[in-house]
Amino acid sequence: MTGSGTDRTRPPTTAPAPVIILVEPQMAENIGMCARAMANFGLSEMRLVAPRDGWPTGGGLKKGATSAASGATHILENARLFPDTASAIADLNHVLATTARERGQMKRVVTPAEAMPPLTERVDAGERVGILFGRERIGLTNEEISFADAILTFPVNPAFASLNLAQAVLLAGYEWFKATGGEPPFRESNTSPPATRGTILSMFDYVEGELDICGFFPPGKKPVMTANLRDILHRLSLTEQEARTLRGVFKSLAEGPRRLRTPKQPDGA
Amino acid sequence: MTGSGTDRTRPPTTAPAPVIILVEPQMAENIGMCARAMANFGLSEMRLVAPRDGWPTGGGLKKGATSAASGATHILENARLFPDTASAIADLNHVLATTARERGQMKRVVTPAEAMPPLTERVDAGERVGILFGRERIGLTNEEISFADAILTFPVNPAFASLNLAQAVLLAGYEWFKATGGEPPFRESNTSPPATRGTILSMFDYVEGELDICGFFPPGKKPVMTANLRDILHRLSLTEQEARTLRGVFKSLAEGPRRLRTPKQPDGA
Repeated sequence: MTGSGTDRTRPPTTAPAPVIILVEPQMAENIGMCARAMANFGLSEMRLVAPRDGWPTGGGLKKGATSAASGATHILENARLFPDTASAIADLNHVLATTARERGQMKRVVTPAEAMPPLTERVDAGERVGILFGRERIGLTNEEISFADAILTFPVNPAFASLNLAQAVLLAGYEWFKATGGEPPFRESNTSPPATRGTILSMFDYVEGELDICGFFPPGKKPVMTANLRDILHRLSLTEQEARTLRGVFKSLAEGPRRLRTPKQPDGA
Repeated sequence: MTGSGTDRTRPPTTAPAPVIILVEPQMAENIGMCARAMANFGLSEMRLVAPRDGWPTGGGLKKGATSAASGATHILENARLFPDTASAIADLNHVLATTARERGQMKRVVTPAEAMPPLTERVDAGERVGILFGRERIGLTNEEISFADAILTFPVNPAFASLNLAQAVLLAGYEWFKATGGEPPFRESNTSPPATRGTILSMFDYVEGELDICGFFPPGKKPVMTANLRDILHRLSLTEQEARTLRGVFKSLAEGPRRLRTPKQPDGA
């Protein structure tokens, strides 16, 4: 934990990102959940304006905040405490204020998806940016909103518009992470290349030949049924590996249980 | 609450949307938080596969789930219970499975932002779609993932990748709502049109005249200082109303306290 000076330490790998400022958060648990949401999306700098229950890692509150943080304790430990909102943003260059309600202020209103790409440009240019989040029930005061450059609000179902504090931080962080090019933890694991047309046509030949042997095609119907079957199989966009697997499936079915295998004769032979 | 039949009721205003299927959720509170997240983004149909703590609105668990739902009780009341994942998705046409880990399955992997726009097309075309969410700690089994058309995963900080169940539902719902054209609850409240150039130039004339009277411009500096001042003021992109407000501010400053007001004379008059 650090005071309100400039001696905070951050993990050295942390890229510059918006500061998350929680104004008079009422519950230590919410502070912890916000820390977790921040960590999910690469945000690391939290500021607290006069938290009702005091310092989140101090004394009896430590447990509530740190257990809710689910391991994002480095954020709580590096959080800075401020007596009021003005001092918490004094060193920042650009500030957004979140609110769920119209405030009648003549201020630009942006969603997280709109706000974050330009915010990454500011951060890349060396600006210090911050996002204000208000008290759990009553949000930010109109005066606090007047400190900001723009209002950040969330697209939500108007019939059920209440987002809790950590959810709002989560959505802001999520769009920040997306705007910085954040990728999911993995992508398709399939490294087999798409099947060649030769592999596919050879599979068609095989399965159609076996179906002929089984007497699958009613007289005169083979051309249209074959075309339909090929349409189904083409739609699979099989990989080379998958085409081999599927051919194996057809082969195994065609040959039947191993103990019953007997040489087959073509129909009419 | 309804059984696992087809007699569920939904609020009549609810547009078709993906079904959210929670597979063996361990804690009633999490079910409630998921219901809340769903309501935030216009999702209304929840299915529960063998919830560990039983039916969320029944008996002693009611409180945990419904208080966490923060008013989204209609979702809990209409939730349907299923004994296993296969039966919970049997009537659906398209299914996504969420997972945070690579599973080695040769299956398409999509993020919520990628998944939701095509999902809206399916829903618009009358398909029933669903999203599977796994158990809190261990997620979905590989078999359950094999039931799905594609894997849904979330872009998160790889150093801190754990999203809780309700957060995952929240992000999926958020992208769904965005993909359906969901808008924030309000936009700029400013209905005053942009100021005309005439209003702006008249304000320049006024303030520059007053500054002349005050002796603000050092000899020979007026042209460059005037240009700089005009640059600052142009950058404001003032509305007509704001231009009037700002002119009033300059006027009030120029005239000084009302009790001290005396007729001014131009410099050198």
